[in-house]
Amino acid sequence: MLEDINEKCAVVGIHGNNEASKLAYFSLHALQHRGQEAAGISSSNGKKLQTIKKRGLVMRVFDEKKLETLRGFSAIGHTRYSTAGDDSILDAQPVFARYDLGEMAIVHNGNLTNAEEVRNKLIANGAIFQTFMDTENLIHLIAKSEQKKLVDRIIDAVQRIEGAFSLVFLSRTKMFAMRDRFGFRPLSLGKLSNGGYIVASETCAFDLVGAEFIRDVEPGELLIFEKDKKPQSIKVFEPTPKHCIFEYVYFARPDSKIFGQSVYQTRKNMGKELAHVKPVEADVVIPVPDGGVPSAIGYSQESGIPYEMGIMRNHYIGRTFIEPTQEMRDLKVKMKLSPMIDIIRGKRVIVIDDSIVRGTTSKRIVKMLKEAGAKEVHMRVSSPPTTDPCYYGVDTPDKSKLIAANMTQDAICKYIEADSLAYLDKSALLRSVNSKEDNYCTACFTGEYIV
Amino acid sequence: MLEDINEKCAVVGIHGNNEASKLAYFSLHALQHRGQEAAGISSSNGKKLQTIKKRGLVMRVFDEKKLETLRGFSAIGHTRYSTAGDDSILDAQPVFARYDLGEMAIVHNGNLTNAEEVRNKLIANGAIFQTFMDTENLIHLIAKSEQKKLVDRIIDAVQRIEGAFSLVFLSRTKMFAMRDRFGFRPLSLGKLSNGGYIVASETCAFDLVGAEFIRDVEPGELLIFEKDKKPQSIKVFEPTPKHCIFEYVYFARPDSKIFGQSVYQTRKNMGKELAHVKPVEADVVIPVPDGGVPSAIGYSQESGIPYEMGIMRNHYIGRTFIEPTQEMRDLKVKMKLSPMIDIIRGKRVIVIDDSIVRGTTSKRIVKMLKEAGAKEVHMRVSSPPTTDPCYYGVDTPDKSKLIAANMTQDAICKYIEADSLAYLDKSALLRSVNSKEDNYCTACFTGEYIV
Amino acid sequence: MLEDINEKCAVVGIHGNNEASKLAYFSLHALQHRGQEAAGISSSNGKKLQTIKKRGLVMRVFDEKKLETLRGFSAIGHTRYSTAGDDSILDAQPVFARYDLGEMAIVHNGNLTNAEEVRNKLIANGAIFQTFMDTENLIHLIAKSEQKKLVDRIIDAVQRIEGAFSLVFLSRTKMFAMRDRFGFRPLSLGKLSNGGYIVASETCAFDLVGAEFIRDVEPGELLIFEKDKKPQSIKVFEPTPKHCIFEYVYFARPDSKIFGQSVYQTRKNMGKELAHVKPVEADVVIPVPDGGVPSAIGYSQESGIPYEMGIMRNHYIGRTFIEPTQEMRDLKVKMKLSPMIDIIRGKRVIVIDDSIVRGTTSKRIVKMLKEAGAKEVHMRVSSPPTTDPCYYGVDTPDKSKLIAANMTQDAICKYIEADSLAYLDKSALLRSVNSKEDNYCTACFTGEYIV
Amino acid sequence: MLEDINEKCAVVGIHGNNEASKLAYFSLHALQHRGQEAAGISSSNGKKLQTIKKRGLVMRVFDEKKLETLRGFSAIGHTRYSTAGDDSILDAQPVFARYDLGEMAIVHNGNLTNAEEVRNKLIANGAIFQTFMDTENLIHLIAKSEQKKLVDRIIDAVQRIEGAFSLVFLSRTKMFAMRDRFGFRPLSLGKLSNGGYIVASETCAFDLVGAEFIRDVEPGELLIFEKDKKPQSIKVFEPTPKHCIFEYVYFARPDSKIFGQSVYQTRKNMGKELAHVKPVEADVVIPVPDGGVPSAIGYSQESGIPYEMGIMRNHYIGRTFIEPTQEMRDLKVKMKLSPMIDIIRGKRVIVIDDSIVRGTTSKRIVKMLKEAGAKEVHMRVSSPPTTDPCYYGVDTPDKSKLIAANMTQDAICKYIEADSLAYLDKSALLRSVNSKEDNYCTACFTGEYIV
Repeated sequence: MLEDINEKCAVVGIHGNNEASKLAYFSLHALQHRGQEAAGISSSNGKKLQTIKKRGLVMRVFDEKKLETLRGFSAIGHTRYSTAGDDSILDAQPVFARYDLGEMAIVHNGNLTNAEEVRNKLIANGAIFQTFMDTENLIHLIAKSEQKKLVDRIIDAVQRIEGAFSLVFLSRTKMFAMRDRFGFRPLSLGKLSNGGYIVASETCAFDLVGAEFIRDVEPGELLIFEKDKKPQSIKVFEPTPKHCIFEYVYFARPDSKIFGQSVYQTRKNMGKELAHVKPVEADVVIPVPDGGVPSAIGYSQESGIPYEMGIMRNHYIGRTFIEPTQEMRDLKVKMKLSPMIDIIRGKRVIVIDDSIVRGTTSKRIVKMLKEAGAKEVHMRVSSPPTTDPCYYGVDTPDKSKLIAANMTQDAICKYIEADSLAYLDKSALLRSVNSKEDNYCTACFTGEYIV
Repeated sequence: MLEDINEKCAVVGIHGNNEASKLAYFSLHALQHRGQEAAGISSSNGKKLQTIKKRGLVMRVFDEKKLETLRGFSAIGHTRYSTAGDDSILDAQPVFARYDLGEMAIVHNGNLTNAEEVRNKLIANGAIFQTFMDTENLIHLIAKSEQKKLVDRIIDAVQRIEGAFSLVFLSRTKMFAMRDRFGFRPLSLGKLSNGGYIVASETCAFDLVGAEFIRDVEPGELLIFEKDKKPQSIKVFEPTPKHCIFEYVYFARPDSKIFGQSVYQTRKNMGKELAHVKPVEADVVIPVPDGGVPSAIGYSQESGIPYEMGIMRNHYIGRTFIEPTQEMRDLKVKMKLSPMIDIIRGKRVIVIDDSIVRGTTSKRIVKMLKEAGAKEVHMRVSSPPTTDPCYYGVDTPDKSKLIAANMTQDAICKYIEADSLAYLDKSALLRSVNSKEDNYCTACFTGEYIV
Repeated sequence: MLEDINEKCAVVGIHGNNEASKLAYFSLHALQHRGQEAAGISSSNGKKLQTIKKRGLVMRVFDEKKLETLRGFSAIGHTRYSTAGDDSILDAQPVFARYDLGEMAIVHNGNLTNAEEVRNKLIANGAIFQTFMDTENLIHLIAKSEQKKLVDRIIDAVQRIEGAFSLVFLSRTKMFAMRDRFGFRPLSLGKLSNGGYIVASETCAFDLVGAEFIRDVEPGELLIFEKDKKPQSIKVFEPTPKHCIFEYVYFARPDSKIFGQSVYQTRKNMGKELAHVKPVEADVVIPVPDGGVPSAIGYSQESGIPYEMGIMRNHYIGRTFIEPTQEMRDLKVKMKLSPMIDIIRGKRVIVIDDSIVRGTTSKRIVKMLKEAGAKEVHMRVSSPPTTDPCYYGVDTPDKSKLIAANMTQDAICKYIEADSLAYLDKSALLRSVNSKEDNYCTACFTGEYIV
Repeated sequence: MLEDINEKCAVVGIHGNNEASKLAYFSLHALQHRGQEAAGISSSNGKKLQTIKKRGLVMRVFDEKKLETLRGFSAIGHTRYSTAGDDSILDAQPVFARYDLGEMAIVHNGNLTNAEEVRNKLIANGAIFQTFMDTENLIHLIAKSEQKKLVDRIIDAVQRIEGAFSLVFLSRTKMFAMRDRFGFRPLSLGKLSNGGYIVASETCAFDLVGAEFIRDVEPGELLIFEKDKKPQSIKVFEPTPKHCIFEYVYFARPDSKIFGQSVYQTRKNMGKELAHVKPVEADVVIPVPDGGVPSAIGYSQESGIPYEMGIMRNHYIGRTFIEPTQEMRDLKVKMKLSPMIDIIRGKRVIVIDDSIVRGTTSKRIVKMLKEAGAKEVHMRVSSPPTTDPCYYGVDTPDKSKLIAANMTQDAICKYIEADSLAYLDKSALLRSVNSKEDNYCTACFTGEYIV
């Protein structure tokens, strides 16, 4: 699928470890796939918060000297995907504020659906907004809450917001982690081997820093981290799980475990289901790398059709500003993907992708395979047609740009010039994720929004 | 004197010219000497504000592409000197806010003396502060004012703050310029030859962009710039001028005209006064470049003792992190200054500096001149002993670091190993600036603070 | 295997196309895996040569403006892997020289085994060497040759050198491509769809720029490219093929075709042979990515044991200079590789790597898999034990660092803590590459050097 | 005059001090005004030479880590002014070579007038040239000399070249300094306080590193530096001094002593002569900074007309790529220079510049002064009309661009719109430099070339 849809961010929090900011740094590196535009860390040494945030990859934003200024036993961090084309750093996180109880910092993965309404109300009451992030609402709500204690103010504040939020709050002495009642975005709790706790968007961060997975933060749950205590849990909302199924389809790292299951295994299941419900005779099954690899392996195992790395992905990609020559057609896709001609030539090829968004990349891939000599190209997609934009923390194109919102499957098949095209239907997708009840948000496939 | 004391910033505002941001850019370049750490510009096209701010010199922060995104007929800009050693961009200006009347941006040169008190009051009422700049108070005061119109809110807000402020405000359609009742920091009004107006910290900005000087913004005056109208003036405070005399002594560019007078001419007057009241027999008068040049010329003209460029300043200075060798004593000063040996050797030398702050640089300069063969070195300083820190927008060392606050003049003379040392006294300094009444703030020499 | 052994470079040449330097640029990008330290291009417009070379990746070395200065109908290019830690650009290619016939530039992939001897002879005759590249010998030999024509001088020169060389020469009007008699390093000829010819180290460059593969440049063959003519061929040496078998094992891109065969297919063959000759009962076959992927697929297909992506590779790797915390063991390998725990846990795992060089990475991988819960770990290597350094253009560690040169296979197995370890033996490897006769250099496995 | 004519480079050599490369680094910084495009240092530890060279200012090219790789008791260095607009580092110095006697490195200030002839002869004999520097001739001549010892080869080599050369050679154990028989370019010898010797283009380098001036290297003299010995002197050529008088006029730093005299004092003499021979009634004398400062002081002292800093130079100059607006005329000069209006307005102004090359800058300066209100502007130039290009190491425009080669003085005066214009004539210039006989090259004023 390749970059038509993007997760908006990742969050991490460390509490009770004197190398908190270093652990946050490595965790953010493990979560880099969830946002490459900006990175930031706030830490507390018990007396004051320190924040560093900047445009760029985690490894470029921080160096030894900067991490040393972020001292303390607690730290929260954020990586950001940004649609904004400018150089403004204003919209990076953590969001920091001084307020009547002292200092706080917040990181947020998700999207608040009533942000504008809340902001307008706050502004009407004299608040000022210095950024364009919906997250800024939260620091205002906390500052203005009439509760005395921070924990009560957080509870007060999250009751006034709607939408998707996996949040981590840092005060001078405590850390808080909170997830909306639907549990749209993942957030897991782990124990550091050397003392202290970690919460992070995905468990791949735990593996890198040597933390042990305990459990997910529950939908609607608030966790309070205090020095030398076990995390306390408060059930703020009754949980009504609606996990983002697209995390399984595309966003999460395959070595993570989210919403209680291995991402890799779940993607393999999708491939198996696809082979089961949308079979086609062919000589070879190949993935669109890297996203399609587990599904293609699943498809191959279920169908018995051999799996091959029929398309190679080039990882030396930066941006080139050099215009291609006349003879270099489809340069953009060829810079990233190239076919294994000997595997493709003369074969009936099943190519597995995780989703089709605009359709242009799929069209180029089919063309590339045909030019490499494929006798037939059968496109199999390990998710249903993407017909609707997401309002819960994912950056999707307008509905007008979503090919499945504007064309029938037959028309799409013709447009991408494939010999056949099939999607995984919603019920098969839900089987793949072992959803006994309907615990997932599938609005991007159905338009049925929850809030 | 060389970098022991620093002006904190410069401001500029352009209104009614379609190349507003470009004019702001060049103006900020002309004002670069007032702050080298960060630069920023906000512009308005009538519908929304755009802001770009970043660490670095004006010429590095902006390029063609960035200036193009700052479209509109009005722009305000800021350069900043920052004591903070970190990479945080949070504390750069303009400060931007969305609030109930729309959007605004502010730039500020000065320092608010009641900032903490105001902030605490605002915080107690639920406000949050996202930066460490006292300027953030202003956007809160404006947002919370119960007045209906922005102009009335600005008047309301500035009545609640104390201290030094030369401010420029930008809304979507208007621009405002305001100076505190004392007129601590300079702010001048000019007319652009191609249409529209400019306000800037110093007139050297006018000269670069081809604007004509009209007059100073008056102490206590608010100017309102509206499209196709002449600037309107409102007297918010009764003016009680207390201009920063150190602007004449050191900060302002010699080709600027501030507080009604040429900086260069005023510095020459100081040199003449110095020759008059602190004469000494000598063979040659030399300046510590570049600050001491005009005073040394004045001293020479008054005394008849020949003026020479006895010390050369090297402008290829960056920062070196290479440790000097054993044989390279006083590297730090020698990298910047070197003596003209033939001018110095065997001579009785009067060396003119604008001020003595810590005393260490003066000590090195005297030593350098002695090593170059000076028979006598007479240090003459074109301002009184600097004994007290500034609270009105200048970055000064602690009182404990100010040599004149801790030693007698005789002791200082011994410490710097000069053959004689004399300062310009306060009354002679005031004569130099043609102050009929006592229109100047001299707190850094007297400890008599105004507010 | 991961970066213990490195190909030293890639070469490319374009002739007869007015976008020659742009085509060279994109070709070098496709060949970036063969050298990431420096890149360079020389072009000719018929009158003079222009050269740009610099440290860094191809995409960073060149921009639009630089490519525009490299005008002309012919261009040669080079990417370099360099062991030198310094910033010297001296040893980047193309090597340029003015000499009695005009100007020339050379790019070289390989290593001259008699370089020192030749150089000493040249130096004794008054030559000077300005770099540390063996390639510099060639420009001297050409300049000093007593032949009249460049083509004859090239023939003269290459007869005086020994070792591995795939060379491209550029003069003001012609281009020459030459391969040593053994054909150690690959070099292929293609036809540009828009006019002109291309030679490149690997065919993956052809695919990117839209060129059609014609054939390999033959071992011992010199190709002459002249405007508006077909390439002329001269057999300079009788070919005695000894292709570098490690190109198949590790260096070449899997989508390239070298030495007459698909790299991907050949690697799959290695996996199949391995399954055939070194079988082991297991539940799953996994590759060390990316190198081990095709062999692992082959192994799975031959053995019927399911293939899985049991180890994930993280491509957001830069260099971090941050020290890990105590709890973060094996950070270096974990930053790059992470296990799919659900795939590994409780399983008997066959892990396929292309080679074992020092053994330290293999040890960490086995440990990582065991920690992920593998019941058994069987290491299978798709090449024989690497016992000897290469003198034909590959950067290998000293023999003392090659684990297989210093330990028995049993000892290695114990050292890396695997449950079993098996290598592909030389004869099975040769079967994988379809070598009817002994057309390959296997010196790194046998110590039997050819020249 | 401002950057129309440029010195091509500076050289330095250190021998017999274990911090040789660090001393070379600081010396090059002091000589930065002689070349800002590239910098390089070669050092020897007795066994081998190490070279680092790169585009950029000295302080950016080297850091602690790089200097540490340049170990040894001897080092030579170079800064370069380059007309070439490209990124090629090929033409930076030191030039390094391995040859039959081992290794050598050379730095060169000057220009060889028979370079092409020598090069063609060398090329005809089989030599290759890898750069476009005339200095490359020297390493060939040394390598091919039939003498046995390096010192004899150097003598042999310099007898085959013509033109201007101040050279420093480094071998593994020795250092050599050589100056052409005319002594066109300066080169001085000093003693390091901590052990060892220094040679450098200007004595300002000695002052920075704490070395004591001994004497100039004589025209035609070769100095040999060997460990634990005093420098040996060999008179290679009979000296016939023809020092570059433009070094006094413009290039050298005013705090240097070259050709036996203080640069500052010599420039003052020029100003005095100018006042004597080209008097004019006026109210004020001002320099074009920084070059004209000493002459203007001299003029003032001789004439009694007061000296003022009537034009300020802005040192925050980088390059801007932003186009000025319509209203910003003469931006290029205004970014660098701005008038002190109060000094200029209503005055008859004498403005002193060191030279007029193209005339365009002078025209802009006169215009700027008139716009600032000058009643009269009298341009006085402290050198004769520049009518001819230099072939001895200075980068001058073509004769067609030299205004004095194409216009009479009257016509120039009209062109620059001055009220009067006068140059210092050649005999007065020679008096200023105390030249008893005709020891100076004045070819740029007369067209009478020496070789």
